[in-house]
Amino acid sequence: MATIRAVSTVAFPTPQDAESAFYEALEAGDFEAMMQVWAEDEEPVCVHPGGVRICGYEQVRQSWAQILSSGQRMKVRLSDAVRVQGMMVSVHNLHEFITVEGEAQESHPVATTNVYLRTGAGWRMVVHHASVVPQGVRPPERAVEAPKILH
Amino acid sequence: MATIRAVSTVAFPTPQDAESAFYEALEAGDFEAMMQVWAEDEEPVCVHPGGVRICGYEQVRQSWAQILSSGQRMKVRLSDAVRVQGMMVSVHNLHEFITVEGEAQESHPVATTNVYLRTGAGWRMVVHHASVVPQGVRPPERAVEAPKILH
Repeated sequence: MATIRAVSTVAFPTPQDAESAFYEALEAGDFEAMMQVWAEDEEPVCVHPGGVRICGYEQVRQSWAQILSSGQRMKVRLSDAVRVQGMMVSVHNLHEFITVEGEAQESHPVATTNVYLRTGAGWRMVVHHASVVPQGVRPPERAVEAPKILH
Repeated sequence: MATIRAVSTVAFPTPQDAESAFYEALEAGDFEAMMQVWAEDEEPVCVHPGGVRICGYEQVRQSWAQILSSGQRMKVRLSDAVRVQGMMVSVHNLHEFITVEGEAQESHPVATTNVYLRTGAGWRMVVHHASVVPQGVRPPERAVEAPKILH
C-alpha cells in the first residue's frame, strides 16, 4: 500500500506566524515543518550564509533536506528586526545570532532578509537571504519595534 | 548665502525604473542620483557584499558617500532576476556581475535582494542586500523572465 503524504494544511495567518514557524523548524531540525513555511507554487529563493543562490521550490527543498539531516541542533536568537508590510508581500530584515549545540559561544550575527507572500494557503516564505556579518564591525542600530504597515 | 539643496523630485513610476536608476547611479558613481533612489522617510536597510547591515537613511547615505567617492568605476551586468510584486512592495532577487574599471575579468556573482516600496514620491528602494556567491559553485538556474504580479 502506497503511503500518502499529507498535503500541507498549515495556514499562517500573519507573516510573523510564518517567520516564527521558520525559526522553530530550524531549531527543531524539522524538515517537514520547514517546508510547510515555503511557498510551493512560487519561485522561492534561498541564500544560506556564504552560499550560492538557490532558486525554485524543489532546489530549496533539497538544500534544507541536506542541512537539516546533519542532525546538528542550533538555537537562533533574533534581533534588530525592521519590517515593511504590504497587503500581499511582507519583508523582514533582522540579525540572527546562532548558537550551535555543544558550543558555548554564540556566532557573530547573520544579516537576513526574509520575504513572505500572502498565498491562498496563508503567508508563506518566498525569499530567505542570509549573509554573515564580519566580526568586530557593527554600526549602531536604531531599535525598531513596530512593523511598518502600509495598508 | 546658504546653498539650498534641491528637494528630490524624481518619481519612479515602477519598481523597475527605480532599479534601473540604482544601477545607473552605481555605474556612474553618481551619489546624488543614488540617494534619489532610496526612500527617505523609511528605515532603509543596506548590506554591501561582505559587509555589516546598515540601517537608517542617514547611515545608508554615509555608506554610499564613502563608496562612490572612491572614484573607482564599475560595470554591472544583471542576470537571473526573480520578482515578486505587490501593490506597495516589490521584491527583486538577482545576480550582479561586476567588472571594475581597468580589470579585464568580471567578478564572480553577487546574489542580491532589492526591495522597493511605493511611496508618495513613487517607487523607492528600502532594502539592498548583497552577498558574494562562492566561486566555482553554481546550481542550475531556472530562467524567469516575467515578474510575478500579485494584483
